[in-house]
Amino acid sequence: MAYTKEPDQLSIKTNVDLLKERQTATFDVASLTQILDGGKAKTRRRKQLESLVLSDPTLNPLDRSVDRLELYDRSLRKAARVYELKVKHNWSPEDMKMVLRMLNDEHALGVHEVMFIPCIERLGTAAQRAKWLPRAHTLEIIGTYAQTELGHGTNLAGLETTATYEPSSGQFILNTPTLSAMKWWPGNLAKTANHALVLAQLWIAGKKFGMQAFMVQLRSLEDHTLLPGIETGDIGPKMGVPYTDNGYLILKNVRIPRDHMLAGFAKVSADGQFSKVGSDQVNYLTMVYVRAKIVDWAFNGVSEAVTIATRYSAARRQGSMKPGDPEVQIMDYMTQQYKLFPALAAAYALFFAKEQIMKEYVRVTKEIQEDSNFKSLPEFHGILCGMKALSTTTAVEEIEVLHRGCGGHGYLVSSGLPGLLGFHLVLFTGEGENTVLYLQSARYLMKSFAKSTMGQPLPATVQYLSRDWSSYECPVRSERDCLNHNVISDIHLKRASYLVKRAADHLQRRLSAGDPQHVAWNRASIDLVTAAVGHAQAFVVCNFCTSLSQLDADTQILEVLSTLCSFYGLHLIIKHSGEFLEAGSISGNQLELIRRQEQALLAVIRPNAVALCDAFDYHDVTLNSALGGYDGNVYEELYGRAKQCVLNKTEVLPSYYKHIQPLQRRLKARL
Amino acid sequence: MAYTKEPDQLSIKTNVDLLKERQTATFDVASLTQILDGGKAKTRRRKQLESLVLSDPTLNPLDRSVDRLELYDRSLRKAARVYELKVKHNWSPEDMKMVLRMLNDEHALGVHEVMFIPCIERLGTAAQRAKWLPRAHTLEIIGTYAQTELGHGTNLAGLETTATYEPSSGQFILNTPTLSAMKWWPGNLAKTANHALVLAQLWIAGKKFGMQAFMVQLRSLEDHTLLPGIETGDIGPKMGVPYTDNGYLILKNVRIPRDHMLAGFAKVSADGQFSKVGSDQVNYLTMVYVRAKIVDWAFNGVSEAVTIATRYSAARRQGSMKPGDPEVQIMDYMTQQYKLFPALAAAYALFFAKEQIMKEYVRVTKEIQEDSNFKSLPEFHGILCGMKALSTTTAVEEIEVLHRGCGGHGYLVSSGLPGLLGFHLVLFTGEGENTVLYLQSARYLMKSFAKSTMGQPLPATVQYLSRDWSSYECPVRSERDCLNHNVISDIHLKRASYLVKRAADHLQRRLSAGDPQHVAWNRASIDLVTAAVGHAQAFVVCNFCTSLSQLDADTQILEVLSTLCSFYGLHLIIKHSGEFLEAGSISGNQLELIRRQEQALLAVIRPNAVALCDAFDYHDVTLNSALGGYDGNVYEELYGRAKQCVLNKTEVLPSYYKHIQPLQRRLKARL
Repeated sequence: MAYTKEPDQLSIKTNVDLLKERQTATFDVASLTQILDGGKAKTRRRKQLESLVLSDPTLNPLDRSVDRLELYDRSLRKAARVYELKVKHNWSPEDMKMVLRMLNDEHALGVHEVMFIPCIERLGTAAQRAKWLPRAHTLEIIGTYAQTELGHGTNLAGLETTATYEPSSGQFILNTPTLSAMKWWPGNLAKTANHALVLAQLWIAGKKFGMQAFMVQLRSLEDHTLLPGIETGDIGPKMGVPYTDNGYLILKNVRIPRDHMLAGFAKVSADGQFSKVGSDQVNYLTMVYVRAKIVDWAFNGVSEAVTIATRYSAARRQGSMKPGDPEVQIMDYMTQQYKLFPALAAAYALFFAKEQIMKEYVRVTKEIQEDSNFKSLPEFHGILCGMKALSTTTAVEEIEVLHRGCGGHGYLVSSGLPGLLGFHLVLFTGEGENTVLYLQSARYLMKSFAKSTMGQPLPATVQYLSRDWSSYECPVRSERDCLNHNVISDIHLKRASYLVKRAADHLQRRLSAGDPQHVAWNRASIDLVTAAVGHAQAFVVCNFCTSLSQLDADTQILEVLSTLCSFYGLHLIIKHSGEFLEAGSISGNQLELIRRQEQALLAVIRPNAVALCDAFDYHDVTLNSALGGYDGNVYEELYGRAKQCVLNKTEVLPSYYKHIQPLQRRLKARL
Repeated sequence: MAYTKEPDQLSIKTNVDLLKERQTATFDVASLTQILDGGKAKTRRRKQLESLVLSDPTLNPLDRSVDRLELYDRSLRKAARVYELKVKHNWSPEDMKMVLRMLNDEHALGVHEVMFIPCIERLGTAAQRAKWLPRAHTLEIIGTYAQTELGHGTNLAGLETTATYEPSSGQFILNTPTLSAMKWWPGNLAKTANHALVLAQLWIAGKKFGMQAFMVQLRSLEDHTLLPGIETGDIGPKMGVPYTDNGYLILKNVRIPRDHMLAGFAKVSADGQFSKVGSDQVNYLTMVYVRAKIVDWAFNGVSEAVTIATRYSAARRQGSMKPGDPEVQIMDYMTQQYKLFPALAAAYALFFAKEQIMKEYVRVTKEIQEDSNFKSLPEFHGILCGMKALSTTTAVEEIEVLHRGCGGHGYLVSSGLPGLLGFHLVLFTGEGENTVLYLQSARYLMKSFAKSTMGQPLPATVQYLSRDWSSYECPVRSERDCLNHNVISDIHLKRASYLVKRAADHLQRRLSAGDPQHVAWNRASIDLVTAAVGHAQAFVVCNFCTSLSQLDADTQILEVLSTLCSFYGLHLIIKHSGEFLEAGSISGNQLELIRRQEQALLAVIRPNAVALCDAFDYHDVTLNSALGGYDGNVYEELYGRAKQCVLNKTEVLPSYYKHIQPLQRRLKARL
């Protein structure tokens, strides 16, 4: 099939093996790219932005230092440049999303834009918005969002920072009462931000009024020095985002005026009367949005990593099947296909999952903002918590397998894989630790299960809990039957339903034995997490199937995606076969048929593997990988990038004279 | 029970929660430490060395920069210091092992000592040994071992570097004929070494004589500059060992004299006659040793990581079980225990595995060196390949779970966990890629299986393949039965036996269908890997059980280790339940009993968790972790280490003036 790649990515000397892989594709890559982008117009716009942004010398990420000062400096320079281009070209929010994605979200002003500004917009009064937002938009105010503390992460109720109102002065006095109360982790807090929204416990006249957000100026707007009573610093090197100045903050009797408490939903009068105004539940939407965005990031991570590893596996030849034969492409090894193709399938599964999650986010948000209708939120929250956890777990697992699948070269920073792994490891814990989120999802599942036993109707994502599975028998009789999407979906739903019931039974057993609710919950929590994983996986698989049944695409594309979808569903069954057998969702004989079909599909996917990666259409600059370039010239890239290493700037390093030469002389003298 | 910790590690203000955990221990920690060390005398010697080495200002690893030049410099300084101390104190090889372990094997002259020198000793002639070894011991010669190439890793036969003999000059001429032939990855090749043993294809008069090792001088012994025809450099930043100068090497018509080919087993006469001398199979032992050493490292990695995470989980309080209650130790959450205790059990399982592997290594080596008897090698190779792969996989998986289990703080380099993860990720691929090794183990398993069907006797580690499993029925009737070590061992052996048979059947099915041997092997390779994993896991579990039955220790220690052993065996059954069910090694009902017992054991392990970690007796300086210190003063440590970060050296970084201030002004001007 004709290859419709843009000429700018077509090298004159593409690796021949990679070229051959592309010729075997059974579908049109550009059409699939347009589906992934959301239409032809969006693909076009993305490419316009790519040629503007990725050719900009400041924004090209090619140099990969590991020096933190340098990384920080470069990231600040990049952020400033992006900000300037955004203002100059009047980019829409959607443009910005595309731009940040092509820069892999390495954006030093991310917290300012994604958390600080939206928080003022949502929690501030009209007067506060008018006062701060214009100054934030011109970066006079650069803000961060200071919530987590050294001793307090997931449990917000435990935060210790205090804001005590003093009626005589009309000021709040902010303090960090203990070591564990210091703010810890906020992005850009250490060196970049000059303001912070500080989450603190409000105290008035010796009484606590719970968590509120306070606008605190940290640094002078003249020379950026720290203001009195403020101590900030960087929390030190870390995995994942080395360029960000995640910081700590200690407050010592920092005084701010009364109108610096965000007062859209709660206010303090001059004489110290506290009052609530409406419901602040809407603030919850920021967190919901970030979690939905993370599912999107997980898709990015897996699709980038699989593009790198698949192209490399096509271009790399190593070993021969039989002594004396020429070396083969490593993609010819079944064990290598078994590393690549589950990740490829996971990437497409996550694509459709994030599309669905984002669609639901828009719908739920609209209901809330337009009609103050929160009724869809619990279901959405139930699936989103599980999906944030599952998608980030999947991303980390697949990226790891892929990075190992690239052998030694996968360890080099220049392969791009260590960076992807680091970034996605962070998402595993950030914005809600995954075990905690699975347990939140499980809480929703337990409630839904209870409803189902009482015959109450359930929303779409949990409707399967109401189905009568007792008479269900898996209809798989042949390897062919295993490809059927309805069959695969049912197998997953029955397993999820079984796991939910098993967890509910465990909980009930504990309660019946006399455990108080919270003890029973804790003691059943391992099974509760397992149930939440099963539920989220069933969602991903069923959503993949449903999305394909509704997809407007040509036959060839539908065919290849359908294969990928079957493969993914079967692969997960093999991976968790014990649960499926235990659930009675398949029999031992059916498991053997499934395993055979799963392995047989590898050969079916193989001719389209490179093309399915090409369809993600990552620009070479975005991938920034010596192994994953479009032209597959792996060795030239590895060598070229190695030469830029800081250790290679001088032929003999001073360390030799300092440490080795004197020792050599001393050892010689001992003889 | 009395706590017999050395006073130097007892802080006056140990975290109270951690203190309480220690009081619940049912066994004497110091006695268990002595078992782990291999006896009281060795514990004593280790502690002597610890107080000498870890108080040395050069060797204290506390500062954790990420700057490569600085890391390299420090590591070179450390290596020089260790070398000097070794000479001064006349350390035995065993002393050196202890010292390197307490320094986490961060040793810039590691390749010189572990590969370069042994290779000369094994492959050189007496004259060559006399010529080079004394100079290597005084570091006049600093060597590396240059084998892998940019395009060639696991497949040594594919190496492209050439050494062409020229009878007229009596010299070899070494060349890097293509880009993919450049040497790539050897440690210390870039900047440190002045000599390399270069593995190259020997050519004489247009005929190839296979791989030989050549001594090539890279740098001047006067000023360390590169010699003509030599290009070396660092391959760039990478995961795992940032301080090492892994390098590349390009050779252009580099001439060396004829006696620079290591000639213990092959030689070239002046007129260009090639001849073999004896068998070079003995060289194989270096690789075998390194793989055995890796099993040991895997134990180190898991035991260090679990010490850090367990102490942190005791000291960290977060969230409450029930709203309004005080915050609880995170170790109180079952889900947290389910992250910690499998790793703890894995650490002890790996301890006994590496003890057994090392014992076998000594036995097999002795047979070979004293009697030229290679008959034990195939079995040892079969189990060692699988164990290298399984132990490194286990290490990476457990360290990841533990690092995630420490929440946000686990991402900080100061937690020690990212460093451990990076180092162990490298071992996954280094010294034999794990999938390749599993397939080598599978090859041995297939041969053994074939023998068993022919009624031939099998060696100990595969004897279970000869057992008649058809009449075996798992005797588990109650949760209590699940604790029995013989029962657990049999369950694992039956599953391994089933997986081996399944893979053999798959292979046979392919062959019967007409596939040539190598095609059939490839097509069955996924099942072959699964079989090798099952075999290695059965080895670990059975060896854990056997080792305890032979262990000379007091009752309390035997009891706690016995619990841990049962837990590990059961945990692996739950983790791979599908295979156990499919194998018929347990029934669905038995699986439920096993799951209940597995979860019930968490509470049994809990009182001893901290003490079991303390018994590993890692010095605080070795752990170098803000989260894992003996005294549990986590927050002080995190803050103290953060303050040392390079970003905190100045209050306002120049980046602010360079990038932000000008932008602020431009944006303001636009208004």
